[in-house]
Order: sequence, then structure tokens, then C-alpha cells
Amino acid sequence: MLTEADACHMARCIELALQGAGSVSPNPMVGSLIVCDGSVIGEGYHMQCGGPHAEVNAIAAVSDPSLLSRSTLYVNLEPCSHFGRTPPCSDLIIEKMIPRVVVGCRDPNPKVAGRGIMRLRDSGVDVYEGVLEAECLRLNEAFITSHTKGRPFVALKIAETLDGRIATADGASKWITGSEARREVHRLRSTYDAVLAGAATVLLDRAQLTVRDVEGRNPLRVVLDSGLRVPFDAPVFSSDAPTLVFAAGRMQGTTEASAAEKKGIEVVFVREVPGGLDLSQVLRELHRRDVLSLLVESGSRLSAAFVRAGLADKLLMFIAPKLFGADALPSFAPLAVEAPSGAVQLEFGQSKAFGRDILLEAYFQP
Amino acid sequence: MLTEADACHMARCIELALQGAGSVSPNPMVGSLIVCDGSVIGEGYHMQCGGPHAEVNAIAAVSDPSLLSRSTLYVNLEPCSHFGRTPPCSDLIIEKMIPRVVVGCRDPNPKVAGRGIMRLRDSGVDVYEGVLEAECLRLNEAFITSHTKGRPFVALKIAETLDGRIATADGASKWITGSEARREVHRLRSTYDAVLAGAATVLLDRAQLTVRDVEGRNPLRVVLDSGLRVPFDAPVFSSDAPTLVFAAGRMQGTTEASAAEKKGIEVVFVREVPGGLDLSQVLRELHRRDVLSLLVESGSRLSAAFVRAGLADKLLMFIAPKLFGADALPSFAPLAVEAPSGAVQLEFGQSKAFGRDILLEAYFQP
Repeated sequence: MLTEADACHMARCIELALQGAGSVSPNPMVGSLIVCDGSVIGEGYHMQCGGPHAEVNAIAAVSDPSLLSRSTLYVNLEPCSHFGRTPPCSDLIIEKMIPRVVVGCRDPNPKVAGRGIMRLRDSGVDVYEGVLEAECLRLNEAFITSHTKGRPFVALKIAETLDGRIATADGASKWITGSEARREVHRLRSTYDAVLAGAATVLLDRAQLTVRDVEGRNPLRVVLDSGLRVPFDAPVFSSDAPTLVFAAGRMQGTTEASAAEKKGIEVVFVREVPGGLDLSQVLRELHRRDVLSLLVESGSRLSAAFVRAGLADKLLMFIAPKLFGADALPSFAPLAVEAPSGAVQLEFGQSKAFGRDILLEAYFQP
Repeated sequence: MLTEADACHMARCIELALQGAGSVSPNPMVGSLIVCDGSVIGEGYHMQCGGPHAEVNAIAAVSDPSLLSRSTLYVNLEPCSHFGRTPPCSDLIIEKMIPRVVVGCRDPNPKVAGRGIMRLRDSGVDVYEGVLEAECLRLNEAFITSHTKGRPFVALKIAETLDGRIATADGASKWITGSEARREVHRLRSTYDAVLAGAATVLLDRAQLTVRDVEGRNPLRVVLDSGLRVPFDAPVFSSDAPTLVFAAGRMQGTTEASAAEKKGIEVVFVREVPGGLDLSQVLRELHRRDVLSLLVESGSRLSAAFVRAGLADKLLMFIAPKLFGADALPSFAPLAVEAPSGAVQLEFGQSKAFGRDILLEAYFQP
């Protein structure tokens, strides 16, 4: 039997899990709670990659271990069943004789994928699945996408006016949104593994792509620069964080390529396709480097390229209460939509106000 | 002394007042409450133009009139002080010896404008002003605009994609938003005095501009048709509701003009200015006809014309979770914004979901 209290405890697991945002990748965010006779007797979360799992921390936080044999353990992601950097959590739960486990969602990692739950059930533990499942899946959307699609979770961040414009006709965009929205962008950067921009944006906005307005770690910076046009003393190459450049294969062995090498800037050469670099190849390379989540901060052309390639998962649309009119720059280049029924379809998620602006989250539909 | 209870009672006045939406124009929407010893002993609202005012109805609803002399009367708009279709409400309050009155906002009607409150105070009534004032002003934004600006309150209703597009390149727009959002548009129509569209929209969409998806009265239909291009058997001229056409002065005495006359269709001739008809003149004429509120359902050109003329008060932006891309039609034609700092500025009001779509309300800033 599941009760409303189970959902409340799961919501608390999600809250705990989120404290690991920005520190646990490429591991998932996990929070865990131990409840005995309706009281929480232990809480824990996965704090950093390589450290103990949430369940281990929650169990360790219980001051009277004799209570464990009549407690419920809550965890937003299926307990692991394999030896990784730490021993399997399902074994620990069995060993501690915890009789009831409530799980938010399964772990898509092929090394787990239901085996953790099976192992618990085989040992007589009562396991309930799917509590706040949608929320738990969303919490680890990056981790799940990485395991199921073999590429990073891609979010397009755009700041536009109410009429869908990201800059006036001459390219000026400072500032469309206010300081609160810009601070939220810095916070988002600190929770993504990598931030990507095109050469045009990097050149025009002198973008640094670092986390400055809030506390938090800098993500990997990724610049798509087919022709290696961005000078190597641009702000995006500051020493604050590593920067990875993707360029066209034809640039291999050029003066620009050797200048980059001399400067210690890593350049990865990829195929060109009509419209720019092959984004699938870019994402495959980032996946190989354990990048689970990618925040794309780009102009109309690159945003449209991700959408047309079917490689965008989420849209983070900051809307400023302003109008620029039709001669200003659009948020998306042409998308080859011929009739309303052929539109690129999304589904709204949360919306939130930041100062005078609004952030609309939307998920691309398959 | 004002308390939280006063704000609660005022919120109830607003709720009551809204029941008059669509029936009271050109009067304001007003609700009133009588409270004795913390209990509501009478409620009333202004039900239709020419009928008794809210205060009269609230007082009449009190079963034991002896309680009035120790009650508080709440009303969202200052009680009137002049003889109109009914005697002044401030006199009735004095006559019933109600000792305390709480008012949401003042009546901008020059015949009242503080005189109702003064009259009450002169007779020894305790009057408190400004409770939920912002909400009360917004409730009667149309009535207030009419009295302060001498023209109707103008709301632009637009249905666009997340990238600011109202139709694909060939003009197809059926449907951008879903049925819930379209039903809300019908509900909005039933609360506005008039709905306006340009000839292009009327021709392309065969718009009827009537209230069909919900219960409610049809607004006056207004078509801007400089050259009298819309055929007089178009759906917008159906017998469901009256339709008023504005045409260019140069069309006076033409075959088209006499055809309209023969059909019994009223045409008002106005000046032309660069970009179309003189919208100020259109609004002055509607004001003369007691139109307090105007819902503009137009394409990019006309929406932009209202904005450029400084004649738009509110934007009702339905956003569908879709993308069309830059070759589709924009929500606003050029607005002569040269730099981000010169943008047309708005301020977000409420936002609400309708099915899969979102409605963002925003107010144009002076």
C-alpha cells in the first residue's frame, strides 16, 4: 500500500538529491530518506562523484541502527546492484534488514536497469516503484538521456522578446532580459556539465560562458568554430575554465590549428554538413568525455540546427516583456515548417518569473 | 484601522463585480458587501446598465435593516454622488446610517472623482480608501481608460508560437493554439464591447468574430477595410451581431459604399495616414458610441500600427508550445526599434495555462 506520506517523503528525496546538482555528474542526483513509525530517522544524498551513494549516507545518519529493521527507505532512483566505485546499495539494504523500499524511478544504466529492484525483492524486501515517477525522471533527465540516447541532454537557452526576437537588426542584444534572469542563466550554467556557443555569438557578445553572478563551478566551455575564426585571446579562452573547440576537418594542419595547439587550446575536428558542423559528431565526442548535460547558448542559426537535427531536448525560453518588431533578429532561423500541422512540437513544463521576465520551460516532443 | 478581513471582503466585491462583465458597459463593474460583527449580511453587484447600483442591491439584500447602523459597506469603486439613471448611492448610505465604508478605488468619472467620498465624510461616515486598489483599478481598466483617455481600452489578442510566429509563410494559421485557448478567446470576446479585425484577417481566415464556443453575448464587430475589399456576404456580416466598417474617406460615394448602404451595413469614413486608417479617429468614433473596451484580433501589420500609435493598453499573448522558424509570419510588423534600450516596454500581468498553451498578459508601459 502506498500513501500520500510516501509521495511527501519522495518529494523530500528529490529536494535532497538536488543538493548534488553540479557535483555528481556523470553520476545521477540521488537523495534518500529513512522513515520509522512515520518519523524521519535518517537523510542523505549523493554529494559528489566517487563518494558514497545516497542510501549509504542516509543509513549512516540513523543514530539507532536497531530501528532499521522496521523502517522504510525512500530513494528517487533504483538502488544499484553492481560494484562500481562503491559496493552495491541493494546489498547494504538487505544486510541492514530494511523491510520496505520505495523507489521513484528505475535506473536506465544497463548495469542496473531493474536488477537492483529484483535483487531486493529476491531477498524478501517489499519494493514499491513509480512514486513521483515523472518528477524523478525529470530530475535525472541528463543522466537518463545519456544512458538511453548515448549523447548529452541538450537544453537550448534563449532570451527573447514577446515577439520572438533575440537582438535588434544590428545584432545588439544587451540586454533583453534583466539582471535576475541573467543571474538564473549563471545558476543554470553551474548545473550543466558543458555550455556551448557558436563562433558568431562568442565574437559578437564577447561571451565568457562562465559562472560569475552566483556561487558555483564553471562548466566546460564548448565553442563551435568551423573556420577557427575566434582569436585565442578572446574572453571565452580565459583561464577560468577549460574550453574545447570544434572545427571543420578542413582546418586540420592549418596555421590557425597550430596556433591553437601552441596556445594549449584543444581543438576537435569534425565533419561538415550543410549548415555547419555535424552536431551528432559533436555530441558523440562530448558523451565520450562524460558530458551528460549541455546548455546551448546560441543565435538563431545554431538553435535551428539543433532543432532540425532532432538533437534538442529542452527549451529554456526567457521572455522579456518587450517588443522589437519584425526587422529584428529572430530566435530561430528557418525550420522548414510548411503548414501549422508540421510545426516543431513541444510541451510546456514549469514557468517562473525572474524579475520582470518570465522563464518558460518546454520539452521537445519526439 | 484596516485589517486583513477588509482585504478579504474587498476581494469578494471584485468577485461579485465580475458577474456583471459583458452586461454593465458603459457602466463600471461594481460589487458590494455589507458586514456586521464580522458576518456578511448582504451582497450585491451591478447587474446591467440602467439597473440599480451594487450598493443598492447589497443594502436591499440585508434582511434586518436595523443592523445597518453598525455595519461596514465594502465597494470596489467609489459610491456615486450624482443623479444618473439612479439616485446617488452616497445619499443612500447616509440615509441608512451605515457608519463605515471601505472603498477599493476612486471613480475617475468627472461627475464623481472624489465627490462621493467627500459627501460621505462630510456626513460623518468613516471612509477608508485604496484597499486592493491595484486590483480594483485593473478590474475596471476599460471604464477608467474611457474616462481618463477619452478612447476605448485596447487589448491586442495574439496567438503565436514560442518563436513569435502567427502563421506559416503562406498565411496558414489554423490552428496554432488548441481548443481550450480558442474557447478562452470566445469568452474574452463576450466581455469586450467590441472586437476589431483588419480586412486581411477577415478575408484570409473568414473570421466571424462572434461568441460561439461559450455562453455569452456577441460584441460589436468592427472591420478596418480602407478600400471596402471585404464582400458584404462574408461571415463577418452575418446577422448574429452588428458590424461596423471603417473605410478610407476616398471611398465615399463609390459603388462599394453604396452597395454597403443598400445592404444596411454602416460604414464610417476616416482619414488615411501612412500605413493605414487613422486609428485615433477610429477609436474616437467608437468612444462616441459608448465602446469602453476593444479587443483587437489582427495580423502583424495592424498590431504594429496600434503599438506605433501608442494606442495599445494590453497584450493578451497566447503562446503555443511550437516553433515555425524564421520564414513564417511574425506577430508584429517592424516597430522602428533601433537598439534594445528603445524596445516597446510592457509589464507582465497574470499568466495562465489553457490546455497545452499559455496565456501571458502584459501591459504596455507609457
